Amino acid sequence: MLKDFASPEVPEGLDLSAKIEEQQDRLFKNQMAIKEAGLPVMVMFEGWGAAGKGSIIGRVIKDIDPRFFRVTNMSKITEDDRRFPFLYRYMKVIPEGGKFAFYDSFWMEEVTDGFVRGDLKQEDYRARVRSINNAERSLMDNGYLVLKFFFQISKKEQKKRLKALDEDADTEWRVNDADWFQNKHYDEYLDVYDRYLEDTNGQAPWCIIDTDDKKWALLQVLTFINSGIDTALKNHGKAAPIRQNVYQLLPTPDLADIPLDKTISDEDYKEELKKLQKKLRELHYKLYRRRIPVIIAYEGWDAAGKGGNIKRIAAALDPRGFVVEPIASPEPHEKNRHFLWRFWTRLPRSGHFTIFDRTWYGRVMVERLEGFCSENDWQRAYNEINEFEKELTDWGAVVIKFWVQIDKDTQLERFTERQNTPEKQWKITDEDWRNREKWNLYEDAVNEMLKKTNTAFAPWHVLESNDKHYARIKALKIVISACEKAIEEADRKNK
Amino acid sequence: MLKDFASPEVPEGLDLSAKIEEQQDRLFKNQMAIKEAGLPVMVMFEGWGAAGKGSIIGRVIKDIDPRFFRVTNMSKITEDDRRFPFLYRYMKVIPEGGKFAFYDSFWMEEVTDGFVRGDLKQEDYRARVRSINNAERSLMDNGYLVLKFFFQISKKEQKKRLKALDEDADTEWRVNDADWFQNKHYDEYLDVYDRYLEDTNGQAPWCIIDTDDKKWALLQVLTFINSGIDTALKNHGKAAPIRQNVYQLLPTPDLADIPLDKTISDEDYKEELKKLQKKLRELHYKLYRRRIPVIIAYEGWDAAGKGGNIKRIAAALDPRGFVVEPIASPEPHEKNRHFLWRFWTRLPRSGHFTIFDRTWYGRVMVERLEGFCSENDWQRAYNEINEFEKELTDWGAVVIKFWVQIDKDTQLERFTERQNTPEKQWKITDEDWRNREKWNLYEDAVNEMLKKTNTAFAPWHVLESNDKHYARIKALKIVISACEKAIEEADRKNK
Repeated sequence: MLKDFASPEVPEGLDLSAKIEEQQDRLFKNQMAIKEAGLPVMVMFEGWGAAGKGSIIGRVIKDIDPRFFRVTNMSKITEDDRRFPFLYRYMKVIPEGGKFAFYDSFWMEEVTDGFVRGDLKQEDYRARVRSINNAERSLMDNGYLVLKFFFQISKKEQKKRLKALDEDADTEWRVNDADWFQNKHYDEYLDVYDRYLEDTNGQAPWCIIDTDDKKWALLQVLTFINSGIDTALKNHGKAAPIRQNVYQLLPTPDLADIPLDKTISDEDYKEELKKLQKKLRELHYKLYRRRIPVIIAYEGWDAAGKGGNIKRIAAALDPRGFVVEPIASPEPHEKNRHFLWRFWTRLPRSGHFTIFDRTWYGRVMVERLEGFCSENDWQRAYNEINEFEKELTDWGAVVIKFWVQIDKDTQLERFTERQNTPEKQWKITDEDWRNREKWNLYEDAVNEMLKKTNTAFAPWHVLESNDKHYARIKALKIVISACEKAIEEADRKNK
Repeated sequence: MLKDFASPEVPEGLDLSAKIEEQQDRLFKNQMAIKEAGLPVMVMFEGWGAAGKGSIIGRVIKDIDPRFFRVTNMSKITEDDRRFPFLYRYMKVIPEGGKFAFYDSFWMEEVTDGFVRGDLKQEDYRARVRSINNAERSLMDNGYLVLKFFFQISKKEQKKRLKALDEDADTEWRVNDADWFQNKHYDEYLDVYDRYLEDTNGQAPWCIIDTDDKKWALLQVLTFINSGIDTALKNHGKAAPIRQNVYQLLPTPDLADIPLDKTISDEDYKEELKKLQKKLRELHYKLYRRRIPVIIAYEGWDAAGKGGNIKRIAAALDPRGFVVEPIASPEPHEKNRHFLWRFWTRLPRSGHFTIFDRTWYGRVMVERLEGFCSENDWQRAYNEINEFEKELTDWGAVVIKFWVQIDKDTQLERFTERQNTPEKQWKITDEDWRNREKWNLYEDAVNEMLKKTNTAFAPWHVLESNDKHYARIKALKIVISACEKAIEEADRKNK
């Protein structure tokens, strides 16, 4: 794409300045339009060092309202960033609906630079490209406009500009070793850029801009952004295609077919609990030292015993290495973003545990049944969730998903007990009673959810919790066995 | 405090295990009580390496619900943390109302360690202590319970424990050079710890715990936390004392006495604007290279022209180095914390600009007049705000505060114009008309605010904005002169 790229010539007799002003005016109006429509817009500027990204961004934003955009420089990756999945630091900075986000380099730079320098092997590169393509599609399906610019510049021109910057005392600090390295290895970079542009052109398409003539480049950028917004506004709120499942799914029984008569004696419970918690504590140190993150997702009926179950896991862990995240309805700044944003931003660092008390599966349960999202939204979500969990396991995380199961009679018993016990009354609300009335609707939704997201890499585990003690012991055993497996695998790879 | 500290003996015949269980049970009940009351609780564990902080924390949380607490290890300071004020990374992690936060070391460790190692000079140390004392008081005045433990251990015992950890292959990774350094320099640390405990005992008091006997230590910790909560619940929601102002205030005219007839010709405006924006752009690079942060706070009447004014400042800055933060009503997770939390977390990195479109002064304007906070809350806020801004300027930030002033007739004209211009209708809401009815009440509140927060280090500047062009030029000149001053000072200090 890049190698055979020829920039269009400036049309003869064109008044560039007038055209630029026209497009800037259009952008100003478009900014109000996206604000009104609640459209989130991501504009990614990628390309060669010294190609003039900074100065073009400066001109693009010149006339628009700075309260509704943000420019973020993504070049610097901190040590802490490296303790999260690749997409993490990018997903963290996606904009809210109605706002512009301009990025001075985005996920391309990290990947292409890593590939040229050899930090990423072929298969790592391919995995990154897959992650990026999935993320871009998922953002667009969820209503984001994604615009991608690549700023092209020749080897000679780059060298000239770097030299000029370097020789001026006021600007020499803007040139670093990485820039010179790039110029020296121009042809290798060109190969990788070319391949990357090709590989990631399938979702949001690339717009390549020759920056030799700055005004002409600016005009092209502005025009491309404006026409992108016009199109996005036409698509906005429209349904996106539901994608086929591409992951291997495990066989999953219906909830109704799961026997709930399993129990454990008090004596066995106490003994097992102590033994298993000790075991898990030891494993946590091993996980920590190997930097393996663990994500445990709890879903289940109200009063099924999630809280007590979580407590028995948490009590076994090093308190400085885990967090329990109770998930309630999204707050406004969360609702205004991709529905997975609030989970991306709550992921554990490598070596740590995060236990979610309710999860991203709310999308296909409560949000589906209460109409908090569109039908298209929740129907697409099964795949979006599978892709999200695939990112997590590819990163190296252990992902464990629990459905805490009880029958309807047991729920009624527990509701009644809560109602009648003063210290437990905070646990029961009118909403719980209302949800109970929709038991059958929820059961259908849960059955569909379990079947569609029971992937080989992040399988569901049903915890039969009519006897809470039984469910706790089972949960501990599952967590332990998953962690042991992950440690073994890590040690095998490191040999 | 530390040198003459003698741990109480375990009372003879005391059943430690039974007492611990009793206190753990009490803590469980207290957790529900703080949840119900919306009380936020911060528990800071400080002390010697290998004193057993981790294991005590593990036992303290054993029986409480992990959904309502979080344990945070604050020991590691990243490079990015250092680009923010000292208090920033601590204020970032204060809990919401109703939740526990346990800290494995907090702001003490950074200060004492820095002092012993010589990174902090005497005057830096004293400034840190001042910051911490103010922050603790402000947290408590805003309803936080702050509990502070120092874990004491003798030089010999520390050495013994470090050796034991070091010799065991499973634990040797937990001992690092800093631990051994501390043991080697035990007496110096003891001096500094002793002084620090004394210096910071005035707000939340210290509880020193000898950890030789772990069970006895645990019992003391649990008892102290429980009695702290009992007391805090009694104080909860009560008014805190309004403190005297300690900062030098500049003379401040009443709004009514400020002439609003200042204007600028179109020609002069265009010329000046261009010249000043160019100047500011150049200064931004200089600020960036010297790592000087700039914070600009905009307040003013509806339709006074804040947006347009901000735009003229922003347009002059490097887009990768500024953010405009529009401040609306707090979201639930913001309302549940100290009212300055959402501003602490929005501060610029060193070298960057943050422009606030409305600010922390909402506390003494809209929140005061609409009753969104108690009278005591807003009356205390003047001092809390002055302290906050002092932290910022002590850090090295340039803090510029603008009041954008118009008269009542001009506001009516602009409201009417907005109402009648389709592209501007989004800018005018029913709330604007309601606020206008309260003009006089607001004017009184603003006059009080300007007088009480017009400090020498962060003075107010009134922008006469009946002529918006005049106001923009004036704002640019003020920003430029403040930045120039800061650069000169920085260069003088570096000589």
